Amino acid sequence: MKSIKPIFTTPAAVEEAFYDALARGDLHGLMSLWADDDEIVCIHPGGPRTTGVPAVRRAWAIVLAGRLDIRARSIQRYETLTTSVSSVIEEISVADDENVRCIATHVFVKSAGGWRIILRHASPAGDADEFAPVSTGATLH
Amino acid sequence: MKSIKPIFTTPAAVEEAFYDALARGDLHGLMSLWADDDEIVCIHPGGPRTTGVPAVRRAWAIVLAGRLDIRARSIQRYETLTTSVSSVIEEISVADDENVRCIATHVFVKSAGGWRIILRHASPAGDADEFAPVSTGATLH
Repeated sequence: MKSIKPIFTTPAAVEEAFYDALARGDLHGLMSLWADDDEIVCIHPGGPRTTGVPAVRRAWAIVLAGRLDIRARSIQRYETLTTSVSSVIEEISVADDENVRCIATHVFVKSAGGWRIILRHASPAGDADEFAPVSTGATLH
Repeated sequence: MKSIKPIFTTPAAVEEAFYDALARGDLHGLMSLWADDDEIVCIHPGGPRTTGVPAVRRAWAIVLAGRLDIRARSIQRYETLTTSVSSVIEEISVADDENVRCIATHVFVKSAGGWRIILRHASPAGDADEFAPVSTGATLH
């Protein structure tokens, strides 16, 4: 028996629920946000490519077994009617006085059951300002 | 005066042209594959998020100033009518006897001018088999 999944009417709402689930260490809630699809892809920072719901769930179970404090910053979005791509700067607390900065790409698709995650690609970020945009107004909001 | 850009009828053709341009060190050809949009995003392995055409071009100019030998392997695709997401395992030669493995996420959108890249997120890959899918037939081809 499959559990009922929440229906999200915007990709931003899915993304907010994603970070809420991470903050709670809620694996079930986290996985309910993904498309129920063999084709979903998740890449954790420094990790390999994970494909399909069972493998993505296993990878998250390992991540959520530890304490995780991720704050989403500077979200940029590119949206079409049925697809949304977001780029998120994440600040992750790995110790009381140490933060690691990552960059995450999220891809959401709209289905009959609302918006779902189909891809997350997260990786350690480099120097913040090295390739920063020069022009103003170049963000995606 | 803007130069004429090629028109690609499939995202796979854009991706092939992308790796061809990399192999040639062809910055102009490479940039012609991207959407002409303030919202494009490019993240090089270990680098920061780069947004907008001028910043993305500058970042690629630095990368292409060196010799680059990238081979695309194991491409998985998720496609809708107007958006395509691909996940690519890349083998990059950094010395005569040393290869580095990266994972790249590409997002393509269909416009009046054909398919274009709107996002590339590349990062170093971890151990290849750690989170590999267990089920068969889970790839995106």
